[in-house]
Amino acid sequence: MNREEALAHVREVLPEQRYIHTIGVMETAKALAEKYGENVEQAEMAAILHDMAKHHSRDDMRDIIKKEQMDERLLLFHHELWHAPVGAYLAKVMMAIESQDILNAIRFHTTGRAGMSLLEKIIYLSDFIEPGRKFPEAEEIRKIAFTDLEKAMRKTVKQSISFLMDKKARIFPDTLECYNDLMLQKEKSKYE
Amino acid sequence: MNREEALAHVREVLPEQRYIHTIGVMETAKALAEKYGENVEQAEMAAILHDMAKHHSRDDMRDIIKKEQMDERLLLFHHELWHAPVGAYLAKVMMAIESQDILNAIRFHTTGRAGMSLLEKIIYLSDFIEPGRKFPEAEEIRKIAFTDLEKAMRKTVKQSISFLMDKKARIFPDTLECYNDLMLQKEKSKYE
Repeated sequence: MNREEALAHVREVLPEQRYIHTIGVMETAKALAEKYGENVEQAEMAAILHDMAKHHSRDDMRDIIKKEQMDERLLLFHHELWHAPVGAYLAKVMMAIESQDILNAIRFHTTGRAGMSLLEKIIYLSDFIEPGRKFPEAEEIRKIAFTDLEKAMRKTVKQSISFLMDKKARIFPDTLECYNDLMLQKEKSKYE
Repeated sequence: MNREEALAHVREVLPEQRYIHTIGVMETAKALAEKYGENVEQAEMAAILHDMAKHHSRDDMRDIIKKEQMDERLLLFHHELWHAPVGAYLAKVMMAIESQDILNAIRFHTTGRAGMSLLEKIIYLSDFIEPGRKFPEAEEIRKIAFTDLEKAMRKTVKQSISFLMDKKARIFPDTLECYNDLMLQKEKSKYE
């Protein structure tokens, strides 16, 4: 599976707006990968495929989560979360992606988690700050992301939690663990 | 252990400001118990004792958490959280409190948890809105608490999470579970 084949696939399965978003994520991920010394091809591939399951039916996603014995707590939370782990599964079986780091970057791009790799952080952030995101927090974090990746992560996960609370939506435990882990790393860095 | 003995004990072990806070929590808890049909004596006792461990030394609290095999995750979080479960332990062994509901109300008064009892909610809220709390959110929630206990709970836990995020402090998982549970109950109530 090369970059062009992956792009052709998502162009086929995603509506135009979602495809444009995907290109935005890809370009942002490439720029962040160059900035922080991550493998650019891996970052592009994860970005291209990150939303590949976004337009799968809920029934399909539910079946895959059950059949593949994914974290069943997902089914108790909003279906908006399901496309990320289902996308990682499809990237593996349909697109023959073997890199666990790419698969994890797809899987955790919506919730985050504790102990994210550099690639996971790049995809999580790129999804939030790609040029199509026009809300003020995206503009602010876009600037920070290229100077202080960890600070951008902290701001993004805080923003996500606040956004969910404003909507009275439940928060998946991985997101809290992501937040707590980032705050713990920050606390530790004070003593270095 | 009657009410007067409990008051005499906390008057002895707490500094004056903390004792005044305790009286405020007691009066608020009594009023909420009357409003919502909870046992007033239980509410008063839980309120009187809720902060009894507040001025214990950190070393003492750490020892008790370990020796009594409490949730060891507490030790990875801010010591501000420790006085609540340690207080529940002391209420049981020093003050001979037998009601598990009172003990739980003391234990979870700082973090909250999923599935809180009415008494637990009354103590959790009273701690936040007693007359000595002068911040704007306390004023707002004080009014709501006497008309809609669940709404007051949702606002309080959201406020607590926002407060911790503003301080860049980590959030104990029980608090997230409390928030998620309250939101789930709210979602369910839409369909009743």
